[in-house]
Amino acid sequence: MIITISREFGSGGRELGKLLSEELGIAFYDRKIIEEVAKLHDLDPRYVEKVSDADIRTAYPMTIGRSFVFAPLLVDQSVKVHSSRMQVIKKLASQNDCVVAGHGADAVLQDLSPMNLFVYADQQSKLQRCLQRAEKGETETEILRQMRQIDRNRALFWEFVSGGKWGRKENYHLCINTSGKNPKALIPGLSEYVKCWFAMQQK
Amino acid sequence: MIITISREFGSGGRELGKLLSEELGIAFYDRKIIEEVAKLHDLDPRYVEKVSDADIRTAYPMTIGRSFVFAPLLVDQSVKVHSSRMQVIKKLASQNDCVVAGHGADAVLQDLSPMNLFVYADQQSKLQRCLQRAEKGETETEILRQMRQIDRNRALFWEFVSGGKWGRKENYHLCINTSGKNPKALIPGLSEYVKCWFAMQQK
Repeated sequence: MIITISREFGSGGRELGKLLSEELGIAFYDRKIIEEVAKLHDLDPRYVEKVSDADIRTAYPMTIGRSFVFAPLLVDQSVKVHSSRMQVIKKLASQNDCVVAGHGADAVLQDLSPMNLFVYADQQSKLQRCLQRAEKGETETEILRQMRQIDRNRALFWEFVSGGKWGRKENYHLCINTSGKNPKALIPGLSEYVKCWFAMQQK
Repeated sequence: MIITISREFGSGGRELGKLLSEELGIAFYDRKIIEEVAKLHDLDPRYVEKVSDADIRTAYPMTIGRSFVFAPLLVDQSVKVHSSRMQVIKKLASQNDCVVAGHGADAVLQDLSPMNLFVYADQQSKLQRCLQRAEKGETETEILRQMRQIDRNRALFWEFVSGGKWGRKENYHLCINTSGKNPKALIPGLSEYVKCWFAMQQK
């Protein structure tokens, strides 16, 4: 039972994934992937996280064709991080049942037939959720810019890994709109749905 | 508790809606809407169904601007059918809890805060489902053409009623991919999810 969570920034998808893993009594991988990659290459987890969240095109500049990066060493490092992320996800997911949030896990784990969820919400709900956990002094405009940028980078990474288009419902088995909803309250229903889905898979 | 089902032709969405209504013990409206409209205007239900499934632009030719219809009486009749469909849906849904499949119910019932589901599947699964219930002699090519045409007309009607874009996940609260799945087996999970969703709505 492998469940992957792709999500828009601020939709509560990570929280939904974590709660779902607790309800199902299985592992949850998100931050753990970053830590494993950092350990593997003796890097600072904060650096690995930064590379993971960055625009994938800066790691693979040849895919753009119009830009040129003057720091081949840094590029090598980024490529190593991205490539290790995929290896770590595969290793973790093949060990036991789990929920994996982000990291293009749905595309990376395709061969293991995961159930792929996409979590999204309207702009207002996402902004509200981000404002609640924002650092002091962050303005609405800054948060909106951050939302756009993170989603863009997630989409670019996902499209790089899968060759498809990020966020198209056709790529997922269930698309969950959390607008105006508390993810926690959806968990009992969602976990039942997931169980039904996997029960059918085994037949 | 009003649940609307929009669905791609062949995705099993109608079946899913009917089973869901049975599981929840509430009414199911689909064919009933056609029958009520037919009764209202003393028309043959088959005619009402045909008009409902047809390209909405033939009913409201002024919206195209490039074509002209030489049968104003027939056009009047079509407009009457479409307009009555919306009135009948509103009347039925305001009377009791229900699942409504098709007829742009999510847009028509917007003021009653329904939960809107979209049911879809990959081409292969839809074709398989259609082949199982196809009339003798129907070829795969004919069925594929029918699938495209019905979905196109559904999209046109929905876009006419709502002003939005049919099938975009943002319009729905949950998007369900039935590829390779038997809708019946998803029902226990789906009905739990629906209950959670409405329980939160009431708070």
